Amino acid sequence: MPTESQMKAAVQAYADGFNNGDADAIMALFADNAVIEDPVGTPVRPRTEFEAFIRQGVRFGARLALSTPIRGSHGNAAAMAFTVTYHDGKNLIATNSLDVMHFDDAGKIVEMKGYWGPEDASVVEPR
Amino acid sequence: MPTESQMKAAVQAYADGFNNGDADAIMALFADNAVIEDPVGTPVRPRTEFEAFIRQGVRFGARLALSTPIRGSHGNAAAMAFTVTYHDGKNLIATNSLDVMHFDDAGKIVEMKGYWGPEDASVVEPR
Repeated sequence: MPTESQMKAAVQAYADGFNNGDADAIMALFADNAVIEDPVGTPVRPRTEFEAFIRQGVRFGARLALSTPIRGSHGNAAAMAFTVTYHDGKNLIATNSLDVMHFDDAGKIVEMKGYWGPEDASVVEPR
Repeated sequence: MPTESQMKAAVQAYADGFNNGDADAIMALFADNAVIEDPVGTPVRPRTEFEAFIRQGVRFGARLALSTPIRGSHGNAAAMAFTVTYHDGKNLIATNSLDVMHFDDAGKIVEMKGYWGPEDASVVEPR
């Protein structure tokens, strides 16, 4: 099992990947069999499907700002609360979100769940 | 399914229950078949076991301060990042934590997972 510090570093690297516009760096954090449910309540997507979601986020200029320090666990999980801002091509959107990630023994993300609802998203800059 | 607002209100009520020292109010938020894994990586406990955990938290004077607004989801879940402080009988402990709650159709909590690791807890006031 990865250490708490290793898992927190991977969560931070996920945020950094967006902030650096580096989709390849983000994808490298995930195991081949990883799945993402983001937002929770929508279908669980395997790597072949969520890669487009990640690359679209980078293309939209998504920026992730931590709301509070990343949390670890006593198991193979870590979590972060953050606000993501991105341009959807029309508006600047800000979404209060929270991601929970589970890791495999190699320290790769095997599951990510994103908690945010319709009420957590807002247009901050119509243009 | 409960609305996003109803779920967020229940999460807030969980925090308020501790802050008001009202263990009965906290327990009333949970379904009879609810389970808690807190912290994640420790055994999942049914209501008959986690009630003691809740009541001990109230007895230890646990106070929960939200780090950032509560997040909803597009499903039956909501989550919050917070810092909990409590006296363990010897020291004042502060733990950066993050709870994810899933709800049943009646709006009761059926599952709660608490994300915090050893590195997230610190003694703030030896006495």
